[in-house]
Amino acid sequence: MLIPKTHPRATSLYIREKLVHGFREGLVVEEGLLAHGRGEMFDYLIGEKTTKTSQKAIKAAARALLVAKLPVISVNGNFAALCAKEIVELSKITGAKIEVNLFYASEKRKKAIAQILKKNGAKEVLGIESKFAKKIPKLDSARRVVDKRGIFSADVILVPLEDGDRTIALKKFGKDVITFDLNPMSRTAQTADITIVDNVTRGMKILIDVCKKLSKKDLEKKSKFDNKKNLKKSTLIIRKNLRRMANA
Amino acid sequence: MLIPKTHPRATSLYIREKLVHGFREGLVVEEGLLAHGRGEMFDYLIGEKTTKTSQKAIKAAARALLVAKLPVISVNGNFAALCAKEIVELSKITGAKIEVNLFYASEKRKKAIAQILKKNGAKEVLGIESKFAKKIPKLDSARRVVDKRGIFSADVILVPLEDGDRTIALKKFGKDVITFDLNPMSRTAQTADITIVDNVTRGMKILIDVCKKLSKKDLEKKSKFDNKKNLKKSTLIIRKNLRRMANA
Repeated sequence: MLIPKTHPRATSLYIREKLVHGFREGLVVEEGLLAHGRGEMFDYLIGEKTTKTSQKAIKAAARALLVAKLPVISVNGNFAALCAKEIVELSKITGAKIEVNLFYASEKRKKAIAQILKKNGAKEVLGIESKFAKKIPKLDSARRVVDKRGIFSADVILVPLEDGDRTIALKKFGKDVITFDLNPMSRTAQTADITIVDNVTRGMKILIDVCKKLSKKDLEKKSKFDNKKNLKKSTLIIRKNLRRMANA
Repeated sequence: MLIPKTHPRATSLYIREKLVHGFREGLVVEEGLLAHGRGEMFDYLIGEKTTKTSQKAIKAAARALLVAKLPVISVNGNFAALCAKEIVELSKITGAKIEVNLFYASEKRKKAIAQILKKNGAKEVLGIESKFAKKIPKLDSARRVVDKRGIFSADVILVPLEDGDRTIALKKFGKDVITFDLNPMSRTAQTADITIVDNVTRGMKILIDVCKKLSKKDLEKKSKFDNKKNLKKSTLIIRKNLRRMANA
């Protein structure tokens, strides 16, 4: 569909088209389209822009990825469809490994996702070969399988657009979790150590920029980031916008 | 996928699966999946339950359908995928006709929807045969076509999960409009005469129950339902829930 540039929601519709394209290519499942629709509404409520509050979380995330010993970027279908290029770029800047990890697992889809990442320059994609599979505790069987060279051994994991159960299991397993979640009240948002309340298509670009700009000195300073406080600010932004909309 | 019963969002995920099934059967389009996701988010904000405010709207809707001369239930892909059985049951109790009417029209999809309704016991499904097609004014060509035995002649129409443009056109055409819409601020919600701010999978069951229970005496009383006031209450519930969630 040709989206007119003048459409008030043109950007949101472009992102949607990108996801539908990913669906047709076999990266995204139907449930992923539904989950995206849910995110769209929250994006609408935060004003479809990266807030100052989210920028703080992005800075904390950049720092955490750069100082990590073994950072990993966990990739699902939606994330790959929306940000394949940015995932690879972020991995190169931070030295993070890339691992495919799906809520609705299928070998075919895993391979399609690995392929799009390689097409965008990824040299190595974990989570594909069964000989490296390891199980993390306290999750049902399908979702607990991770790569022993990746998530299993990582200290810091970026898991965007993630399910609450999985985020909690990763925390219990001792990992530092960074996430993108447009719903500041979700279990994932509340459980993660650093939650970026932003659309991945905007936030990933900024995260890459910030990673490039942070100096050694910046990394030596202790982080003062408070996730709970930050999330409250995001919720406040939504409440303010909702009040404005209700009175419009 | 097998959804664990212990998942805190199990019901929401079951509904999602139902819609995905409808997508695979050709009832639902991709845009319908995304639209459902947006609704999911509002359902989450109203607390994933039927509020007292919505129950009032349901009672008013039951009354309006039962006293109507020619009530019609307008059915699109998502509504059929989620509530085929309930649509047929409501039609039998109220004497309402069932008409298929789509935003993204296609003959194939219309037939698939009619088929699932018939499989669930519908004797007659309007909106399929072109010889009964009539146009309503002030809408673009694809969506203005309705059945002259149905929506064209109806006095009361139930049009759930509807687009704002179409709701406005039906109002301008002199119809009494009842809708299900989880976003109390949407144009459809604001334009309809009775807006049920509830998930159709919950609300339809209650609507059927209320239709069964309303006595002749109940129907003789004048309705005191005020939609604008009711919608303001729903918006207030969302704002309160947001505040509660933010402080949790």
